[in-house]
Amino acid sequence: MNGTSGRFAGLPVTLDDIRRAAARIDSSIVHTPVLFSELLNAALGIDLWFKCENMQHIGAFKSRGACNAVFSLTAAEAAAGVVTHSSGNHAAALARAAVIRKIRAHIVMPRNSAEVKLAAVRRLGVTPILCEPSAESREATAREVVAATGATLIHPYDDVRVIAGQGTTGLELLEQVTDLDLVVVPVGGGGLLSGMLIALKSLNPELLVYAAEPTLADDAARSLRSGVIEQPLRYDTIADGLRTPLGQLTFPVMQRLLDDILLVDESAIQEAAATIQAELRVVAEPSGAVPLAAVMQHKEKFVGRRVAVVISGGNRDPRAA
Amino acid sequence: MNGTSGRFAGLPVTLDDIRRAAARIDSSIVHTPVLFSELLNAALGIDLWFKCENMQHIGAFKSRGACNAVFSLTAAEAAAGVVTHSSGNHAAALARAAVIRKIRAHIVMPRNSAEVKLAAVRRLGVTPILCEPSAESREATAREVVAATGATLIHPYDDVRVIAGQGTTGLELLEQVTDLDLVVVPVGGGGLLSGMLIALKSLNPELLVYAAEPTLADDAARSLRSGVIEQPLRYDTIADGLRTPLGQLTFPVMQRLLDDILLVDESAIQEAAATIQAELRVVAEPSGAVPLAAVMQHKEKFVGRRVAVVISGGNRDPRAA
Repeated sequence: MNGTSGRFAGLPVTLDDIRRAAARIDSSIVHTPVLFSELLNAALGIDLWFKCENMQHIGAFKSRGACNAVFSLTAAEAAAGVVTHSSGNHAAALARAAVIRKIRAHIVMPRNSAEVKLAAVRRLGVTPILCEPSAESREATAREVVAATGATLIHPYDDVRVIAGQGTTGLELLEQVTDLDLVVVPVGGGGLLSGMLIALKSLNPELLVYAAEPTLADDAARSLRSGVIEQPLRYDTIADGLRTPLGQLTFPVMQRLLDDILLVDESAIQEAAATIQAELRVVAEPSGAVPLAAVMQHKEKFVGRRVAVVISGGNRDPRAA
Repeated sequence: MNGTSGRFAGLPVTLDDIRRAAARIDSSIVHTPVLFSELLNAALGIDLWFKCENMQHIGAFKSRGACNAVFSLTAAEAAAGVVTHSSGNHAAALARAAVIRKIRAHIVMPRNSAEVKLAAVRRLGVTPILCEPSAESREATAREVVAATGATLIHPYDDVRVIAGQGTTGLELLEQVTDLDLVVVPVGGGGLLSGMLIALKSLNPELLVYAAEPTLADDAARSLRSGVIEQPLRYDTIADGLRTPLGQLTFPVMQRLLDDILLVDESAIQEAAATIQAELRVVAEPSGAVPLAAVMQHKEKFVGRRVAVVISGGNRDPRAA
């Protein structure tokens, strides 16, 4: 039941780290609601609970990890600012956390980022640093900022402070819903998943935790089979938040603690997003609908059980369907 | 501070009625979340809180009043079932309340009701009784059901049990948000508004309560000016839940307790619904966006204050924008 013995030995983050993160970020994040739909439950034959991180500040769980990372900096580190490269929700989340701590944030974003993501950063008073749309350009630009400013790089997921922050989603969920059998979490880089695995499995070793991943971005499933971090082979899933490879810190947590990973089709993701809108009257971005898609596409694994799914974000591109 | 003296004398519902309703329906309704958006607050210069009745069962506050009415029936009354005529959320709410109490519900709906509203009733296992799309046909059909079955008519708003049930929204809001200056409530028939007025003004006489109404359905504003219940003159506002006239029970409560009524344009309603979706990641039906539309269109009345708006429902017609 702690992070230093047995199956938790050697993992990069402990339950205590997550509890400290929860205290550190408490007044700067939303304790997001858990919703359910009687009619959806009746239709599926499952007791389904939705942890609504789409209602988190900036519309995604990323605010938790970004706040924990920024608030963990020493005064000297903070004075030099923070930097990250991201085309997604981590960019806005880090900008917001820096605004709260009143420090500089250098946000490197590809020139072709969605206008809505660029606007989300600008609204916080931070001007994105534009780079070419390649991993090389992103990383090189971020390194230049570090060299010039001494800012601390906050990786979107492969960072113990970020993982601990995302894990607070699991602490909250278990305070809000009792007697869960199973939790389904989306996996991109694995920050949310590894943080929640440590929180959930530490507090309840019997609880099953499944990852959900698009078939078109099945690098996590392949990595778990091969035992090494595999790269994405294509980048065209509508679940744009899940197109990233696993991290050096997140992958070993998944190898140790994850019970299963379920792949979902693009059509199932779209159906799940529409179901969330119709039955819960909330907006999920495609990545945030992937766990419900897994439940609907692999229904036989869930029937008759008490299941929580994380709606990880709600920043749907208004130009998309 | 009670319903029998001073400005509350003679009103059809008391704070105690609303408290009893809250206890009666407690396990059958959602204690809906209150959300806020830091960025929206910063943009408007207002501390805005959203009471999310779009996340209520069947997607609207109507579940509160319907449950209170059905659960208040004597065993003999219940045995004969309930009846209503409605083209909107009250139909599904009453059907659901009847299913919970395991009694018959006769739901009279115009033939030309939105397919989504008909489907919402059918999903609950209740077959709507279709009538012609006129007030006369609706009322005559409901009377025939009463004559044939002895069922109790549950009016969508002009019913003390319904008003008391809707008023529980106000009790909850004051438990969830402290130090409010002002609450904005949409007005159609006035059930939600009159119930909330009694709850809010009984508990906090200093709290201002404003109604919000579409300019295209300004019958409540005209009624308050003339002192008699005026009829709607047109039925084409996109806020389809607010096309109804005030009731004999709800109007006197408004005359006594309401501080102001604000009219809003159709474009403001659409902008408010889009703002709710973008900033809060939740879905409001047009009627549910009318209070925010009032805040945005009459911003000068709200700047610098702590304001709650009720998102009354989230059943947006999927065929509409």
